[in-house]
Amino acid sequence: MEIRRLSILGVGLLGGSLGLAVKHAVKDVSVAGYGHRTATLEKALERKAIDEVFSDPAAAVKGADFVVLCTPVGAFEDLLTKIAPSLSPGTIVTDVGSTKRTVVGAARRALPKGVHFVGSHPMAGSEKRGIEFATRDLFHGSMCILTPTEETDLIALNIVDHLWSMVGMKTTKLSPADHDRLLALVSHLPHATAAAVMRAQDERGIPLAGNGFKDVTRIAAGDAGLWRDIFLDNADYLCRAIAEARGEMDALTALLEKRDSAGIEAWLADAAKRRASVSPKAG
Amino acid sequence: MEIRRLSILGVGLLGGSLGLAVKHAVKDVSVAGYGHRTATLEKALERKAIDEVFSDPAAAVKGADFVVLCTPVGAFEDLLTKIAPSLSPGTIVTDVGSTKRTVVGAARRALPKGVHFVGSHPMAGSEKRGIEFATRDLFHGSMCILTPTEETDLIALNIVDHLWSMVGMKTTKLSPADHDRLLALVSHLPHATAAAVMRAQDERGIPLAGNGFKDVTRIAAGDAGLWRDIFLDNADYLCRAIAEARGEMDALTALLEKRDSAGIEAWLADAAKRRASVSPKAG
Repeated sequence: MEIRRLSILGVGLLGGSLGLAVKHAVKDVSVAGYGHRTATLEKALERKAIDEVFSDPAAAVKGADFVVLCTPVGAFEDLLTKIAPSLSPGTIVTDVGSTKRTVVGAARRALPKGVHFVGSHPMAGSEKRGIEFATRDLFHGSMCILTPTEETDLIALNIVDHLWSMVGMKTTKLSPADHDRLLALVSHLPHATAAAVMRAQDERGIPLAGNGFKDVTRIAAGDAGLWRDIFLDNADYLCRAIAEARGEMDALTALLEKRDSAGIEAWLADAAKRRASVSPKAG
Repeated sequence: MEIRRLSILGVGLLGGSLGLAVKHAVKDVSVAGYGHRTATLEKALERKAIDEVFSDPAAAVKGADFVVLCTPVGAFEDLLTKIAPSLSPGTIVTDVGSTKRTVVGAARRALPKGVHFVGSHPMAGSEKRGIEFATRDLFHGSMCILTPTEETDLIALNIVDHLWSMVGMKTTKLSPADHDRLLALVSHLPHATAAAVMRAQDERGIPLAGNGFKDVTRIAAGDAGLWRDIFLDNADYLCRAIAEARGEMDALTALLEKRDSAGIEAWLADAAKRRASVSPKAG
């Protein structure tokens, strides 16, 4: 299947980059963009990330064979309810959300029969925001997680897989729950600990911060509203991930209080060994 | 005062880099190097980081007007005891340790009258180890914390300050206790949390790790023996710093359990605001 009309709901960094990438890869595709801020839509149009602007999401999806939700995750349910009556049978809907159980459940409830939803989490570009930073190679070389369920249409799954592969991503598949559990550990927990370390500081120590501190806390500068949505949406698994990390810190505290030299070294060496197995930083 | 004979005890990354930097900055200085591994000493000699090799620290400090302890912090007390009888009056002794109360106390007990100790913590190059990575500009542009006490000789303090300035460092002064308390927060806590986040992972999630995860956990790959020494030596303040971070995580958990949207956003926004005040990554 060739995409002829793509509708991008939310034209920030991810939506704008997707428009640029798809327009580069697919000849004669037309891209409709919805956003709630006129200035953003105009910028996306000016940058040729989209071809037409819409201030109403239902109008933006009319005639589309492919719809991608690119707003923050907190807006997905409302958006799905609004677009549902305007979607044609056979339309494929996906999203770029960092959490997956909620959007998959909301799509099941909101979308009519014959419209196929497949959850996607393209893991690209989390630090900067906005159409200004959109580039057509944002997705290149990064991982995209697809989250099919037993009800997912297999043809639609393959087409969504094809979309992300086409813009340069490596794809993998997980259930929505496995996605949210693993991402709580590998993404949301690091964000929470970076912020906690930052909040724990005494201001007098900040001028003494070295590169280690800067690396550990860098992501704490991320957009609070965006991460609030992610944290809220994955609150249960995030609480469990925080409890895991807290258990590790408590174990270290116990070793420190006993001045257990061998135990502290073993605790650190295990972390160092695990870290060595992580592949180097991507692009 | 011009340094004529510098004795470097421990010729790894920091000791080797100091030898290279001082030999570059000071004409006709002679540098004695002590280490417990012959291969390391020979490599330091070959790289011209030192001019003479010694397998006995007491012999390495004979005739030196300046002595710098560059071994891991766990070896300092033993080293000070061994060199004390061989130091001439007027000799200045400093160190490069990441913790300061212990070495300052050990120097007070071990060193004879007329030998002046000033604690230093040059904050440079913590990730790589070994003479192979030594460079004469390792210290350039980084911060060095000097930790004088009421007993510190002011002329000696100025000379030590001059040494680190000469190799390109910005210096600042803190009491040994303030140093250890602030460094527990700004350096040892980030290392502990990086390791805890790494240890908390499910292996299935590691292939999904993005750049955020990689930044947060990077320093967890650091040498376990080196960090064990630092953690042990600063165990009391590190336990307090961990308790601070744990308090922050507990507060976040409580907000998540209540699904307190505004509270979560405020918790994150405070961290983001504080992180924005941290200067960008140094060299």
